[in-house]
Amino acid sequence: MRATMIYGAGDVRVEDVSYPVLMHATDAIVRIVRACVCGSDLHGYGNRPADAPGKAMGHESIGIVEEIGSDVHKINVGDFVIVPFAYSDGTCEFCVEGLQTSCRHGGYWGNGDVGGGQAEAVRSPFADGTLVPVPGTVDPALYPSLLALTDVYGTGFHAAFKARVNSATTVTVIGDGAVGLMAVLSAKRLGAQRIILMGRHTVRTDLGVLFGATDVVAERGAEGIARVLELTKDDGTHTVLEAVGYREAYDMAVGVVRAGGVISRVGVPQYEEAPIGSRSLFSRNITLTGGPAPVRAYIEQLLPDVLSGKVNPGLVFDKTVSLENVAEGYAAMAERTALKVIVAP
Amino acid sequence: MRATMIYGAGDVRVEDVSYPVLMHATDAIVRIVRACVCGSDLHGYGNRPADAPGKAMGHESIGIVEEIGSDVHKINVGDFVIVPFAYSDGTCEFCVEGLQTSCRHGGYWGNGDVGGGQAEAVRSPFADGTLVPVPGTVDPALYPSLLALTDVYGTGFHAAFKARVNSATTVTVIGDGAVGLMAVLSAKRLGAQRIILMGRHTVRTDLGVLFGATDVVAERGAEGIARVLELTKDDGTHTVLEAVGYREAYDMAVGVVRAGGVISRVGVPQYEEAPIGSRSLFSRNITLTGGPAPVRAYIEQLLPDVLSGKVNPGLVFDKTVSLENVAEGYAAMAERTALKVIVAP
Repeated sequence: MRATMIYGAGDVRVEDVSYPVLMHATDAIVRIVRACVCGSDLHGYGNRPADAPGKAMGHESIGIVEEIGSDVHKINVGDFVIVPFAYSDGTCEFCVEGLQTSCRHGGYWGNGDVGGGQAEAVRSPFADGTLVPVPGTVDPALYPSLLALTDVYGTGFHAAFKARVNSATTVTVIGDGAVGLMAVLSAKRLGAQRIILMGRHTVRTDLGVLFGATDVVAERGAEGIARVLELTKDDGTHTVLEAVGYREAYDMAVGVVRAGGVISRVGVPQYEEAPIGSRSLFSRNITLTGGPAPVRAYIEQLLPDVLSGKVNPGLVFDKTVSLENVAEGYAAMAERTALKVIVAP
Repeated sequence: MRATMIYGAGDVRVEDVSYPVLMHATDAIVRIVRACVCGSDLHGYGNRPADAPGKAMGHESIGIVEEIGSDVHKINVGDFVIVPFAYSDGTCEFCVEGLQTSCRHGGYWGNGDVGGGQAEAVRSPFADGTLVPVPGTVDPALYPSLLALTDVYGTGFHAAFKARVNSATTVTVIGDGAVGLMAVLSAKRLGAQRIILMGRHTVRTDLGVLFGATDVVAERGAEGIARVLELTKDDGTHTVLEAVGYREAYDMAVGVVRAGGVISRVGVPQYEEAPIGSRSLFSRNITLTGGPAPVRAYIEQLLPDVLSGKVNPGLVFDKTVSLENVAEGYAAMAERTALKVIVAP
């Protein structure tokens, strides 16, 4: 079959690889219906060494189950499934607690003998724990929103959920990428009345307003902080959902969070050390939370409103490429001519 | 009257100062019955520049109200009161939320025209918001435990409360100082079944066991981390209450916290930058919380068990000095020959 591999920076290729086969009794083979390119794929696309070994790409997909192992009981051949961005056994304490990204036996797609989703098919470890079947006949018009549930919607929701957003909390969302916009949608879902979106791409922030943002701040850095403080009588907001990952975004989060508030990060930090002492977090009792979203934990609760059309997270996709042209999708996202790209095998 | 002042490092003096007078209608004058020396007083005692101006000391005291301003309604002359380590108006949004350390009009003792508690008397701003009256006749045997409520017990409780300790969470407490021991007592109060105390002063850790610690780890650094992991099947504990403030303690906290867990800091950080990226907090969804404890928020709920003798937080005091000999108390704590010192005017 055809599958996407990355070599060095900017070097994404579609290659012939073996069709996946069941390796364990708990596996399933999923024929991919749609996949997508993730903002986090761009890190490797931007800076992977030219001599790095090839790596299978894609961790967000939806598809149809073609084959199941003898120990798969909740998933059936023919099921239309959502494939979250991490696989997990569904039974360990972490999975039971809803922290599937720390599953004792779980992992990420495209590592070891587990392939990626930007391909014709993928082998899913722990099918019962990992895959979420979509009931009924699936309208192709819903594909984008179902794809959003594999990563970006659940990730934005994780940010808002970990920050304990509710109707009494004001919210700043840092970042107008797909995850930031999904954080807006999630904050709205959790009842937030005031949602300030920090982003400077008008097309994206317009979508943010559609998802529930009440204010848009285009300025960055010290100017951006000053603008949010101006909007909040110098207090800042109770919660800050940081969906970027760069140190500048963390510093902005510290600058706009209210005393006693929460900074919730879901952008993968591109830094290790940062200020957390008395001058930044401690003296004002700021809580810092977040991490890789256990999207598997959220799919069942977010799915009904997607199926009913009450929410349309799929609006974050603005380009579709064929699998053969996946490199074009990477380039479009890297150049920011596309917000988020669907890959159609 | 006599009051404690600090000049340079190690230079604590008892001097004659003016007796405090009412300055605002919301003030009260409190005659000090007992005060104490705090671990945080030792920071200035250890490194204050020799040419620094004198600063009034003491932020933990109990006493009797001598005089009240015309706009004081909840506190009466003659009340025996607990004076928490920060004053607060009791009416702003932060006070209403229980974050009195971020009170819009609050502050800390010994700054500006507000004196310190290691003295014969002190003027309390916002008496209604700040002071907590103790009902009935107060048995002097309770003085130590009432003093604990002014800071260390509430601070230990803040650590456990912010970490959301409950009967399902395992706990590591880092530090066997008074606050660490109070964090043990607080974790026990909140239902924790497993409380690992990291400390190497046997007299103190024995007290920790009395307060509820189930395990004691004397090792520090990498060895200490290894020992806690050994005790928890390599997982670490759900919560880590960090009651030291040095960077080494933070690093230990990161090393012993379980995926999805919480590090709750109440030791004032003696560092500003520290690791918070993927390798430390992010990849395992660790939450970092804590800050200066709004002890005022906790006194009413912690007081009944103190009055009934169900808990005895006053056991952390192991030395009493007269006000004239307060310097001896500082020295004893700095040399670690005393755990915590009472000052009797």
